[in-house]
Amino acid sequence: MKWMSFKHEGKEKYGIYLTEDHAVAVVSDEEYAPPTLVAAIEEKRFLDTVLHNVEQLPRVDETTIEWLSPIPRPLKNVMCVGKNYRDHAIEMGGETSVPAHPMIFTKAPTAVSAHHAPIPSYKSLTDALDYEGELAVIIGKKGKEISRADAIDYVFGYTVLNDVTARDLQSRHKQFFIGKSLDGTCPMGPWIVSKDEIKDPHQLSIETKVNGEMRQKSNTSQFIFPIDEIIHVLSKGMTLEPGDIIATGTPAGVGFAMKPKATLQPGDIVEITIEGVGTLSNTVEV
Amino acid sequence: MKWMSFKHEGKEKYGIYLTEDHAVAVVSDEEYAPPTLVAAIEEKRFLDTVLHNVEQLPRVDETTIEWLSPIPRPLKNVMCVGKNYRDHAIEMGGETSVPAHPMIFTKAPTAVSAHHAPIPSYKSLTDALDYEGELAVIIGKKGKEISRADAIDYVFGYTVLNDVTARDLQSRHKQFFIGKSLDGTCPMGPWIVSKDEIKDPHQLSIETKVNGEMRQKSNTSQFIFPIDEIIHVLSKGMTLEPGDIIATGTPAGVGFAMKPKATLQPGDIVEITIEGVGTLSNTVEV
Repeated sequence: MKWMSFKHEGKEKYGIYLTEDHAVAVVSDEEYAPPTLVAAIEEKRFLDTVLHNVEQLPRVDETTIEWLSPIPRPLKNVMCVGKNYRDHAIEMGGETSVPAHPMIFTKAPTAVSAHHAPIPSYKSLTDALDYEGELAVIIGKKGKEISRADAIDYVFGYTVLNDVTARDLQSRHKQFFIGKSLDGTCPMGPWIVSKDEIKDPHQLSIETKVNGEMRQKSNTSQFIFPIDEIIHVLSKGMTLEPGDIIATGTPAGVGFAMKPKATLQPGDIVEITIEGVGTLSNTVEV
Repeated sequence: MKWMSFKHEGKEKYGIYLTEDHAVAVVSDEEYAPPTLVAAIEEKRFLDTVLHNVEQLPRVDETTIEWLSPIPRPLKNVMCVGKNYRDHAIEMGGETSVPAHPMIFTKAPTAVSAHHAPIPSYKSLTDALDYEGELAVIIGKKGKEISRADAIDYVFGYTVLNDVTARDLQSRHKQFFIGKSLDGTCPMGPWIVSKDEIKDPHQLSIETKVNGEMRQKSNTSQFIFPIDEIIHVLSKGMTLEPGDIIATGTPAGVGFAMKPKATLQPGDIVEITIEGVGTLSNTVEV
């Protein structure tokens, strides 16, 4: 199923996106519905009941909703794996920058935004706002010291994430947090695809287009650190929780590494498509 | 006032610590009380009313409570300034590691723990668990693009924070997040001292003792980046929110830089004292 959050008639809701009908089956108005999609992810019994009755749910047309990030306000920062595609590590810093261990930084939850939300251009703050198309993993249940063999049991699903980065701030402040955490620089969505719909998360094509021009074109088979290893390493001493978001890194082709550089400009349309997950589209504010 | 969170008769509460009486005036049971201290910080009118009636509040004796972190579950990761004392920057990496711009990394909210809570020893994960005594700033109101002149208006108060760090994980994973985010490695407290009680946050002695031995001894006058500058830089593109926690960095004297190295061992007692704020004490689990 495609789980999404949205605004309808002024209220925040969540539900299931119905691809063929271009409509949303509204879940959050049901009796006993937890208040948010993250809270619902924690209540597996509620979700299972809903899944048996999708046909009976009230529907709203796609054209009448405002898209929200599937998780509009994460309960902690978004965790991101740096340089998880070999070709991107090399384009940013040469062979020596290919990591031997997963490198994890975070983006503030205030940075999270939605499918179709404008990306602020921050003209006075940065000269180098860049896109990074990424597959993001959504954690489905609480866990610590998770083995690689069990890791996928802890996954709820997958979404598309644009790890928009101010390259100059990223390098000026050494640790990546500031350059990665400007408000509105973490578009996510349009929905979370539950993991049962993705046969193998390590065999998905991933593409980023800017104004229709292909900039990133790779496959999650190119990960240096696969999802089970990332979950294993993160959970060794840290409890993972339902609704945690782990962005798995971006392939080669970011604007900052192009010659000449082609970072984001006001009016640019960024579209990231991941096979079986969906297309996330955002325009840079003019 | 000293604002604190605690557990009493199985319930999470918050209130005001009464130093002379070794007791807590319970605020969270009052009519109209917001559910948590962070929620109360957002409701200035409620706090002001309470402050006029402290004498009338019910009291519980200090010996009957379990200490909690003043903010048991922050709404985002703890933001930390790396290498904000020149002497510590030099002990970790020489003159070239003194930062020209604030370096910000984060600690997971699941790492936060309380005064007197044991620090897990993580013997199977790290050989180099280290203490870092720090002054932490608690944000009191929402803001963005905050000028240096206005910055202190956005501060609610101050607390003591131990930025416990697994040095080997910190260096193995390059970005600091993993080595800084193990569960229980962010003791905070005992309370938040409201800013009216601190005449000048840049004139406070800060000391860390391990088993009674002085390890860190400095003064917040030694900050490379003062609090107003940190708030200004962070808020340029990122919205700060009530309850946000900013740890301002640690002075020289961490165990990893001693010769021979003296990182934390099971049974070690770490006490961090900041003038006018308080003493945070934690023991490493045996």
